[in-house]
Amino acid sequence: MEVLETVAAVRARVRAERRAGKSIGLVPTMGYLHEGHLSLIRRARAECDFVVVSIFVNPLQFGPQEDYNTYPRDLNRDTRLAAEAGADVIFHPTPEEMYPAGFQTHVEVEKLSQGLCGAFRPGHFRGVATVVTKLFNIVGPDRAYFGEKDAQQLAIIRRMVRDLNLDVEIVPMPIVRESDGLALSSRNTYLSPAERRAATVLYRALVYGRDLIAAGERDGLRVRDAVRRTLESEPLVSRIDYVAVVDPDTLEEKTTLSGSVMLAVAAYIGKVRLIDNIKVVVD
Amino acid sequence: MEVLETVAAVRARVRAERRAGKSIGLVPTMGYLHEGHLSLIRRARAECDFVVVSIFVNPLQFGPQEDYNTYPRDLNRDTRLAAEAGADVIFHPTPEEMYPAGFQTHVEVEKLSQGLCGAFRPGHFRGVATVVTKLFNIVGPDRAYFGEKDAQQLAIIRRMVRDLNLDVEIVPMPIVRESDGLALSSRNTYLSPAERRAATVLYRALVYGRDLIAAGERDGLRVRDAVRRTLESEPLVSRIDYVAVVDPDTLEEKTTLSGSVMLAVAAYIGKVRLIDNIKVVVD
Repeated sequence: MEVLETVAAVRARVRAERRAGKSIGLVPTMGYLHEGHLSLIRRARAECDFVVVSIFVNPLQFGPQEDYNTYPRDLNRDTRLAAEAGADVIFHPTPEEMYPAGFQTHVEVEKLSQGLCGAFRPGHFRGVATVVTKLFNIVGPDRAYFGEKDAQQLAIIRRMVRDLNLDVEIVPMPIVRESDGLALSSRNTYLSPAERRAATVLYRALVYGRDLIAAGERDGLRVRDAVRRTLESEPLVSRIDYVAVVDPDTLEEKTTLSGSVMLAVAAYIGKVRLIDNIKVVVD
Repeated sequence: MEVLETVAAVRARVRAERRAGKSIGLVPTMGYLHEGHLSLIRRARAECDFVVVSIFVNPLQFGPQEDYNTYPRDLNRDTRLAAEAGADVIFHPTPEEMYPAGFQTHVEVEKLSQGLCGAFRPGHFRGVATVVTKLFNIVGPDRAYFGEKDAQQLAIIRRMVRDLNLDVEIVPMPIVRESDGLALSSRNTYLSPAERRAATVLYRALVYGRDLIAAGERDGLRVRDAVRRTLESEPLVSRIDYVAVVDPDTLEEKTTLSGSVMLAVAAYIGKVRLIDNIKVVVD
């Protein structure tokens, strides 16, 4: 498995593949790969002739109080897993390669970045939009693969692609969960055994909200409050950033439920911030 | 001469040319073409197999009190002039084509956008950076051509290309002037005959500053003040936005002159805001 560390190297490699008529797939990740990432790589492998997996813990999307320095990293393991899932090359740049001295350009998707996680992580989605724009420009993929767990990120990237006329197809992939419902996340490794057991409350709360809708509830605020009460019932939930019932594309709150609806939560189990969401189509 | 009005049409056209192995040149303009623009098109013609000229008065780069509605437009004349200079196709989108409902993504080159014109035209360079990113993504040129009259714009676009890894070569072209020194600008058409005569003061002031440096002056502030006094000596100069002595790449003020130096001015002749600049290499 080739691990390329410079923009010039990955560009040259992709250019050669493209000249040979191959289609290019990109799976952008921050590494510490889990089954969620691997499902993206496998899908890219199935749909594209040449698959680039980027592994870059992007400093721009971490706040000063966040876990940039402690975010889990294991390039050897990632390389092996990515190869097994069908990656052709890994792009693993240094922060200096991505943000050389004098760097000062940012991409911002304004309205979509304001609510939900954006309200609690100022600058986070600006960092995401900027690095994803750079990765698209470096690799020039035909398709790029993103997980639906980061639902706000996905909505922002789709909007950005349309707004900036980026010539890439965004392929979303469903959340991969543990057998007890916990959504896979590289940050799950931070959880103690007791926290790990408690963390299932996010999914249970979302399922409870979905069940309410299935039972006929059409008041978004009542669904929201019911999900929140479920989260609050778990003693290890130390803080709830938000519980939201929104349109999955515009991320605007839905008070009367119809069409596509997304229930989304962000909460701390101890000191670990987790997010999850579930989509419902209401008749 | 083909005039294409949609993103899809220009993309399809360029894609076909590229498939045939042709290199692509882009000359982004706001139309009302003058010899400055035509020098860009001719250079693109000489260097590229297929030349796209975009004509789009970009609402995003005009302030609410600025001249978006009255900015001069003449597509028939522009089409003829662009064809004569060697353009292969004109891209002339509507504002709705470029900024459809829900548009909310912006590109910002932060430090470089703050001083000089940026201090007097808040949001202007954000609008420029955003539309140029879009045009690059739509056309996918090998080279794009920009005039040095808009020196801050040029510095910003160069920085943006590096920062966002845009795969395009930026080709700058020298300012084209009238025989009396006035830099060509579509906005010169706003000038009354008396204002047109007075407008030469911008270039005269810059030349005076250059002559001071040639005579040995190495104090940037003294050069700046001398240029300003020359502007002030013209009664039809109704306002001076700035006189600046800066590094042409970083746009930072130079107090002790050495290496590449740019003298830049922005001033109103009556109600017409004009800019000009001159570069000097100091031994």
